[in-house]
Amino acid sequence: MATQFDPPSGTRDFLAAEAERREHAFEVIRSVFTGYGFEPLQTPAFERLDVLLGKYGDEGDKLVFKILRRGEHEASGEADLALRYDLTVPLARVAAAYGSQLPPVYKRYAIGPVWRADRPGKGRFREFVQCDLDTLGSVSVLADAEALCAQHDALTALGLAEFGVQLNSRRVLAGLLEAFGVPEELGAGVLIPLDKLDKLRPDAVVSELEGRGLAPDVAAELVTVMTAPDAVERIRAALQPSKEGAAGLDEVDSVLSLVAGQIPAGRIAFTPRLVRGLSYYTGPIWEVVAPGVPGSIGSGGRYDHLIEQLGGPDTPATGSSLGVERILPLLPGGGEAERGRLDVAVTVMADEFSRQSFGLAAVARAAGLRASIYLGTARLGRQLA
Amino acid sequence: MATQFDPPSGTRDFLAAEAERREHAFEVIRSVFTGYGFEPLQTPAFERLDVLLGKYGDEGDKLVFKILRRGEHEASGEADLALRYDLTVPLARVAAAYGSQLPPVYKRYAIGPVWRADRPGKGRFREFVQCDLDTLGSVSVLADAEALCAQHDALTALGLAEFGVQLNSRRVLAGLLEAFGVPEELGAGVLIPLDKLDKLRPDAVVSELEGRGLAPDVAAELVTVMTAPDAVERIRAALQPSKEGAAGLDEVDSVLSLVAGQIPAGRIAFTPRLVRGLSYYTGPIWEVVAPGVPGSIGSGGRYDHLIEQLGGPDTPATGSSLGVERILPLLPGGGEAERGRLDVAVTVMADEFSRQSFGLAAVARAAGLRASIYLGTARLGRQLA
Repeated sequence: MATQFDPPSGTRDFLAAEAERREHAFEVIRSVFTGYGFEPLQTPAFERLDVLLGKYGDEGDKLVFKILRRGEHEASGEADLALRYDLTVPLARVAAAYGSQLPPVYKRYAIGPVWRADRPGKGRFREFVQCDLDTLGSVSVLADAEALCAQHDALTALGLAEFGVQLNSRRVLAGLLEAFGVPEELGAGVLIPLDKLDKLRPDAVVSELEGRGLAPDVAAELVTVMTAPDAVERIRAALQPSKEGAAGLDEVDSVLSLVAGQIPAGRIAFTPRLVRGLSYYTGPIWEVVAPGVPGSIGSGGRYDHLIEQLGGPDTPATGSSLGVERILPLLPGGGEAERGRLDVAVTVMADEFSRQSFGLAAVARAAGLRASIYLGTARLGRQLA
Repeated sequence: MATQFDPPSGTRDFLAAEAERREHAFEVIRSVFTGYGFEPLQTPAFERLDVLLGKYGDEGDKLVFKILRRGEHEASGEADLALRYDLTVPLARVAAAYGSQLPPVYKRYAIGPVWRADRPGKGRFREFVQCDLDTLGSVSVLADAEALCAQHDALTALGLAEFGVQLNSRRVLAGLLEAFGVPEELGAGVLIPLDKLDKLRPDAVVSELEGRGLAPDVAAELVTVMTAPDAVERIRAALQPSKEGAAGLDEVDSVLSLVAGQIPAGRIAFTPRLVRGLSYYTGPIWEVVAPGVPGSIGSGGRYDHLIEQLGGPDTPATGSSLGVERILPLLPGGGEAERGRLDVAVTVMADEFSRQSFGLAAVARAAGLRASIYLGTARLGRQLA
């Protein structure tokens, strides 16, 4: 039951073991990202309200924590600041603010909390950490492959053994629409129900596609192809006549070829039914999935116009994001996080020895141990307990 | 000039070099604190409004960033949450919430941002990091000495060479009031002007003491004693007849004796004129000062009733806080923070070699180097530039 001393709804206190476990994971991720030449970026917890609002759609705007104006303006009940909702809008602002001071190809990572006034639930928090890396300024598929590999290496460095990467391209999806004769104005969003083929029955997905305006025969054919044992081959064949589709296949194959030395072959697969809900992707897209975890534990893709839409410069961009709050519970216990609080506990036998005890703890620390003197009031027999 | 892309007033963006420099410093501090057996604690960025308000006095309350209620309640203009103002009130809440799950002597550190709607100025920010360590549940002077040594060791581990520690006890100040016949109801606050003896002329301090209700002859005598070349000896002698004063001297001498093996003798001194403005201290108090830096770069002391006043259990407590935002500019440049962004930049000679280039970067990373491929569009001659 919630008490007056609990943290606010949807937030958590992290006591020692969990705080160390999390900090250790962030250090591992930082180290991998740094190894790839990504630079850290830290932005404030809050942004001006106008920087955030209108960037996440109506639903997103409602989930923004707004900060009341202060002093004489407090009574107005108006907000002028808001807690950051993600790490991408702050990146766009930074790209706009520091443009010429940043390298022409700006590779940055950011690890930090974001806040969303979502209804709290199992595994859904109002304060949670995002781990993002993004490359601004490169149109090369090398940048996409690098973002994917850095994400992959971070997961293996964390000790995650079982996971898979689903790879697709928005251009493959555009080609599919062309190949199946879907009116262009319906847009790639019409394909979002395809993402549900791993949890819904095929006919349910057909219905959802129809609901989005696809002709019944096209919807049925698309689902039949997508669920066929040789789906990938059939889709490759179907895409060839479409210029956009062929370009998308090229992207997918380039990424597969580039990452082949680093991501084991069985762990990554061209997955034509992968759509990803967000409309801003423009090139390669991917999701990382783990057995037993609904949804994804990581994702990424190219979004060549988003930074401009978010108020930044017009720059090509690609990046990936780790669902670190979902990943942490999957990690094997043990390691650094499970290390005891102390290596040496110095017991004070009598007050007149306290100075020697204090010095002994210092010697132990100098030798690299965690050392503390006993600070309670119990006598020796109880101290030993 | 502020532009629409600047971070909000009083906050900062940290690009690569500065972010790394800060992160490195926090890691050094964490490592020292952990070595002393302090455990990490992380609490949310915001607390319920009622947890924060009324804890910092009227002036403090005005500086709290309040978060507007959400959804249908947003229009009320009311706040229900607020950004944390320090790390001590959250500690008191945690001590109340998890009492029996915490060790009887709870040694915790916390490193994280706090937010205050202060007027921004040189070196004064609205978002800044605090580095606190506190020990709850111990009445022993060993705990005070440990808090002081951990703080001291963190500063030396950071590479700070020149600093000094001023040590006093609130009980010394209480004894002084008794020895100089100051009416008890004036309280130790009457002595706050003594803190200004290092920047104001003695007669100005006398005036301020009088302004707080001290008799003119007492104020003059106090300042004369405090500024005498043999001030410490004279005050030691004056305190002996007072039971409280003698106990305070004992505290100071115990701390000095305990830390003698770790803090060089010339770096710490009994400083009777040290008062510290906050009223909640009850035992040893100290400040860390560095040449050329106005005010202190760290402080600490015993505050045996504060946790209860802040809504926690009635527990003795002592702790220290590093003024890390003031310390960072003092640190020698260089070291980890100045390491280049990349050790290896792999140049792609022609598109057909991109896969090999990608693999080469991976090999360099496996050898522990930071490696990235060139992601721009310039041809070789410009890449080499």
